[in-house]
Amino acid sequence: MPVREHRRPDHDIDPLFVNRWSPRAYTGEEIPDTILEQGFEAARWAPSARNAQPWRFIHSKRQSSSWAAVFGLLNERNRLWADKASALIAVLSKTTYDDGSPNHTHSFDTGAAWANLAHQLFLAGWHTRAIGGFDRAAAGNVLGVPEGIAVDILIAVGRQGPVDALAEEFQLQETPNGRRPLTAFVSEGVYRAG
Amino acid sequence: MPVREHRRPDHDIDPLFVNRWSPRAYTGEEIPDTILEQGFEAARWAPSARNAQPWRFIHSKRQSSSWAAVFGLLNERNRLWADKASALIAVLSKTTYDDGSPNHTHSFDTGAAWANLAHQLFLAGWHTRAIGGFDRAAAGNVLGVPEGIAVDILIAVGRQGPVDALAEEFQLQETPNGRRPLTAFVSEGVYRAG
Repeated sequence: MPVREHRRPDHDIDPLFVNRWSPRAYTGEEIPDTILEQGFEAARWAPSARNAQPWRFIHSKRQSSSWAAVFGLLNERNRLWADKASALIAVLSKTTYDDGSPNHTHSFDTGAAWANLAHQLFLAGWHTRAIGGFDRAAAGNVLGVPEGIAVDILIAVGRQGPVDALAEEFQLQETPNGRRPLTAFVSEGVYRAG
Repeated sequence: MPVREHRRPDHDIDPLFVNRWSPRAYTGEEIPDTILEQGFEAARWAPSARNAQPWRFIHSKRQSSSWAAVFGLLNERNRLWADKASALIAVLSKTTYDDGSPNHTHSFDTGAAWANLAHQLFLAGWHTRAIGGFDRAAAGNVLGVPEGIAVDILIAVGRQGPVDALAEEFQLQETPNGRRPLTAFVSEGVYRAG
C-alpha cells in the first residue's frame, strides 16, 4: 500500500521519515542476521549525552529457542499479531553514567537509537512496530536484566505480510496513521503547544 | 572534514547514520524558517506509543528577542561554543496520555523524534548538537513549561563553522567521535551486554 495515500507532509522532507510506518501484518519469515546487524549498526551511531551510548538490545528470532520466553512477555492483544513477526527486540537503557551518576537522558538517547534502527531496517525492506503493551515487571527476570538497566520497549521486526491474515480487529487499522500539525507541538521562545 | 576518516561502520548501513555528527563550531548565520519547519516536520512522523506524539519543541533563533533567555540556561562551558549556533531548540515531552495515565515512554518516543529532526536538518546541510548541560531547574520557568511536561534536552542548530574560531579547549575535540562495537550492547535471548 502506497504510504502517500495516507500521509501528506506539510513541509518538504526526505521521504524516509514519512514512508516508515508500523504495520502489524508480518510474514513470519526468518530474518537474516545481516539485516539485524545493520539495524544495530545504525543504532550504534546515534548521538548520546557524553557519548555514553546507553542503549542495549536483546534480540530473539521467531525460530530461536529464546522466542517463547520473550514472546510470552507480550500482552494477549499483541500476541494476536506479533506471532508473525520475524524477531522481537527488547530495547533497554543504562540509567547511570560509568561514574555512577544518573543519566537523565538514558531513555531519550535510546529513543534516538531506536529511530536509527527502525529507519535502517525500513531502508533494507523490513518493518518494525514498537510494543509498549508487555509485562514490564516480568521482563527484567525473563531477559536477565541487571540492576541499573531499564527496559524501554519491545520491538517487532518483520517483512510486511497480507492484511487479511491479521485478526479481524486489526485489519481496518492496518494503514499508516496521521500526525498532529506542527502548530500543536512547536512554538517560539516559550511553551505554547497543546 | 570527511567523516569517513574518523568513522568506519562494521556493517553496511545507509551513510546518513554515520555521516551525521555533532560539531561545536558554527557560523552563527540566520537559519531560514523553512529549514526549522522541515526539521520539525521530520520529527512529526516519528513513531510513538498509542500515537500520542508526546514531543514538544520550543525554538529560539540567535537573532530573536527570546535568544538571551534561552541561551542563559546553558552551563558556562556550553556558552563558549553555543553562542555561534543559529538557533537553540528545547525538546520537551508530555509525561501522560490524554486520559491522564502515565506515559512510560514519553522521553524515549521524543528521542526518536529528535533523531528524525537531526537527520532531516543534516540532509538539508545543517548540523545539530544536543546539550545536556543546562539549568534544568530554571528551564521550566524561563520556557514557561506547564506541569506534566518534562524538559528532555536543548539542541544547538547551525551551519558548520571554522574550527579555529572555537575556544581552544574544544578545537582538538572537533571531530566525529567513535562508538563501542555491537558486542558491547547487543545480545541474543538474555542480557549479556556491558
